[in-house]
Amino acid sequence: MVVFSGDLDKLLAGFIIANGAAAMELPVTMFFTFWGINALRKEGPVTVQVPKTTKEKMFGWMMPRGPKALKLSQMNMGGLGTRMIKTEMSKKNVMALPSLIETARAQGVRLIACTMSMDLMGIRKEELLDGIEFGGVGSFVSSADSSRSTLFI
Amino acid sequence: MVVFSGDLDKLLAGFIIANGAAAMELPVTMFFTFWGINALRKEGPVTVQVPKTTKEKMFGWMMPRGPKALKLSQMNMGGLGTRMIKTEMSKKNVMALPSLIETARAQGVRLIACTMSMDLMGIRKEELLDGIEFGGVGSFVSSADSSRSTLFI
Amino acid sequence: MVVFSGDLDKLLAGFIIANGAAAMELPVTMFFTFWGINALRKEGPVTVQVPKTTKEKMFGWMMPRGPKALKLSQMNMGGLGTRMIKTEMSKKNVMALPSLIETARAQGVRLIACTMSMDLMGIRKEELLDGIEFGGVGSFVSSADSSRSTLFI
Repeated sequence: MVVFSGDLDKLLAGFIIANGAAAMELPVTMFFTFWGINALRKEGPVTVQVPKTTKEKMFGWMMPRGPKALKLSQMNMGGLGTRMIKTEMSKKNVMALPSLIETARAQGVRLIACTMSMDLMGIRKEELLDGIEFGGVGSFVSSADSSRSTLFI
Repeated sequence: MVVFSGDLDKLLAGFIIANGAAAMELPVTMFFTFWGINALRKEGPVTVQVPKTTKEKMFGWMMPRGPKALKLSQMNMGGLGTRMIKTEMSKKNVMALPSLIETARAQGVRLIACTMSMDLMGIRKEELLDGIEFGGVGSFVSSADSSRSTLFI
Repeated sequence: MVVFSGDLDKLLAGFIIANGAAAMELPVTMFFTFWGINALRKEGPVTVQVPKTTKEKMFGWMMPRGPKALKLSQMNMGGLGTRMIKTEMSKKNVMALPSLIETARAQGVRLIACTMSMDLMGIRKEELLDGIEFGGVGSFVSSADSSRSTLFI
């Protein structure tokens, strides 16, 4: 699964599918690239080892930090739609995105962050969740080549 | 095929591919989730059995009812672009979305609505086209696992 | 791979994956449909053999001509974000989209333009890069059916 998008609704769909497959004991690999990387960021500001350029800092500020900061791709309505969906989810016992991510990790879903995207957007390894793997496009292609199905989200 | 999107252009692409594959006698399953569900809604208002909460009513009003109400993901221009594309489609003998859906059903394409999304958005079974199947993520995963190719649209 | 999108970032992801797979000697076919077609357009205005209708001319003007004219799906900010990403890419030695397309072709990636989309949007064969293939949905389905993995981008 390639996770390109940084939209809350697409990530929910992605993790629900990943967790569903993992629950059926199918091995799942999620490869996070471009905006998808933001879903793996830690919430608070992180002190990075290699100092960021001004541009990298700007990208870092403008992009959402972690799953709680993501928004709907549609009907966001200045955040109102996103809040409404989150309330409905908790009321109807649908797991929120941070819990879905934790469950995925507990179920052994592999989360790989695309190093080229990280380099491009100036995201350092220490800014992402601990225990994430890192890889280039080759790692996605190898994993896709041995998978029964692939999705681009 | 996961149909996540509720954009007219993406649904056209999805159904054209589904119908193309079905015409070549390949079995096709389309799993509708999130905004994709709206493509399966009946046009008029429907009297539902379980009364809706205020929030569910709001979602229902704001989201498009059925294939004719969907819009382009790009160049919609307040509906003008969508109207232009529809005129061009009919002039150039490209099937409109409602006919594509009917053809898909006639060709035996399975249409499954995601029950979790329906629950979340407060969409009741009686609001969707008759004869649609209902299922959770497990039904998608099983079908993906036995498919030669999967798409996330 | 179905390339539906005409967003710069999605096309970068698509071509990076395609080139990665081709470098690992896997055969790759990219099927361009709807907005994706714009990535294959030549840059300048092209004299077409069959004159265009007014509507077709309008579509042609409004849609981007070729890979250099594409924009980010997010954080475009009136073109500023797109320019920033392009500068970062060249600074960090990430190939720009036109070079990625050339590399793909040099590596034998098949690029097929969807004839139905071209017809709908009034794009003529002479407006697209030389040496592109043309095909309908059947050509995608056949190629998907014999592929190990498919993506919808």
